[in-house]
Amino acid sequence: MTYCVALKLNAGLVFASDSRTNAGVDQIASFKKMRTFSNAGDRVIVILSSGNLSVTQNATNLLEQQGRQNDVPNIWNVPSMFDVAGLLGTCLREITHRDRPHLMASNIDVGATFIVGGQIAGEAPRLFMVYTEGNFIEATESTPFFQIGETKYGKPIIDRVIRPETPLNEAVKCVLVSFDSTMRSNVSVGMPIDIVCYEANKLVMGPEQNLPEGDPYFTQISAQWSEGLRGVFASLPEPTWICGPENDLFADISPPLTEPPLS
Amino acid sequence: MTYCVALKLNAGLVFASDSRTNAGVDQIASFKKMRTFSNAGDRVIVILSSGNLSVTQNATNLLEQQGRQNDVPNIWNVPSMFDVAGLLGTCLREITHRDRPHLMASNIDVGATFIVGGQIAGEAPRLFMVYTEGNFIEATESTPFFQIGETKYGKPIIDRVIRPETPLNEAVKCVLVSFDSTMRSNVSVGMPIDIVCYEANKLVMGPEQNLPEGDPYFTQISAQWSEGLRGVFASLPEPTWICGPENDLFADISPPLTEPPLS
Repeated sequence: MTYCVALKLNAGLVFASDSRTNAGVDQIASFKKMRTFSNAGDRVIVILSSGNLSVTQNATNLLEQQGRQNDVPNIWNVPSMFDVAGLLGTCLREITHRDRPHLMASNIDVGATFIVGGQIAGEAPRLFMVYTEGNFIEATESTPFFQIGETKYGKPIIDRVIRPETPLNEAVKCVLVSFDSTMRSNVSVGMPIDIVCYEANKLVMGPEQNLPEGDPYFTQISAQWSEGLRGVFASLPEPTWICGPENDLFADISPPLTEPPLS
Repeated sequence: MTYCVALKLNAGLVFASDSRTNAGVDQIASFKKMRTFSNAGDRVIVILSSGNLSVTQNATNLLEQQGRQNDVPNIWNVPSMFDVAGLLGTCLREITHRDRPHLMASNIDVGATFIVGGQIAGEAPRLFMVYTEGNFIEATESTPFFQIGETKYGKPIIDRVIRPETPLNEAVKCVLVSFDSTMRSNVSVGMPIDIVCYEANKLVMGPEQNLPEGDPYFTQISAQWSEGLRGVFASLPEPTWICGPENDLFADISPPLTEPPLS
């Protein structure tokens, strides 16, 4: 499995991905699922990938290879992130078209999804999600983030915290808490976490961080979050209807829905 | 969609279910997904259901109807919860066998899952999950809970809080927080929430609670939890590598993975 998340904030973009891949529980490996393309002053592009590793790697390799041909529209010369998402979708379709029959013959899932975001000089930062079929959508103010892979465990904290005006620092904290929740509930998502921030309109990639197993900051976040949650949880009021101070547990027994038949 | 959860604790059992059913977003209705069978002093049984509503209702109706025949093993006379889970699985298989071809002809999912738990005099409280195929598993000390339906959003808090020794009061709080997270992230799970506790070895059903939209206790839990999470989140240390007090955002720029080709 995989967990990747990207945020589009007023302050910039945040991208993060785990590194665990598996083909069955007995074939677990570590692969980077983040790829960055940077030409300072002109464009900064980050791609996160989820799904069949051969398909996602081939599609991004094809995108990168096309970038060496100057006479075609490519990732280094198209004028917009919209075009970049289109190029990636087209590469994905090409690989899927080539490999699908062979993978399907072995009942192997060909599904692959990307998040691609960044900024190209002349337009604002943008963020897209590319589906298995090569079509894509763009993040908007009302939903300023995309997740791919094992998305559900880590979504509640993002829903609660992330707004377009969230600062980058806070967004990174939130992303790490989201990874913590995901990794607690799904062992097929694992460290190291790759994370990179892009500050809007700088057209220079922020520092890439790789947080390995046991990373002190992640460990601290994880422990404090866990302890904090327990504290908040303990402070919530008790339900009075179970066995509040004045209530006996069975003081008010509702009639059971179904009683045994008379016989 | 549906969200149901049941816990098996040393102190007893907790069952909770939402009430929203939908067949497409334009057909949303409220149906109770909890059914209780109680013969005080002899047995207390609770069934939670998820999946195709006609299948789950028919299976539990069949189980209830068989309970009126004294000459066959039924929910009122079998000596163990293991047998009750078996009866429910058999009823589910009967309905599925009858309806599946007709549902499949219209591409309708026949999937249905149950949680069934309770206590029968002579044995300890037990908790089972019955799969679509009618097979079933039992909760153990290491995983003292089952969830069915939209399970992922609400799982992290249960993973963090619930242990066999958790008291009933705290367990109910935890279940409600779990519902809060689920309902925030999936609109197809909705109030009212039905919740019932059973105190171990009493052989009397605890009071059933129905928490409607706007229930004051649930609203309070939800608001305090949200506020508390924000407080804990705010107290987490900031990552230093983005723009800590001493660090400029771009003081340490890693080399980008891919640079544009020389040409």
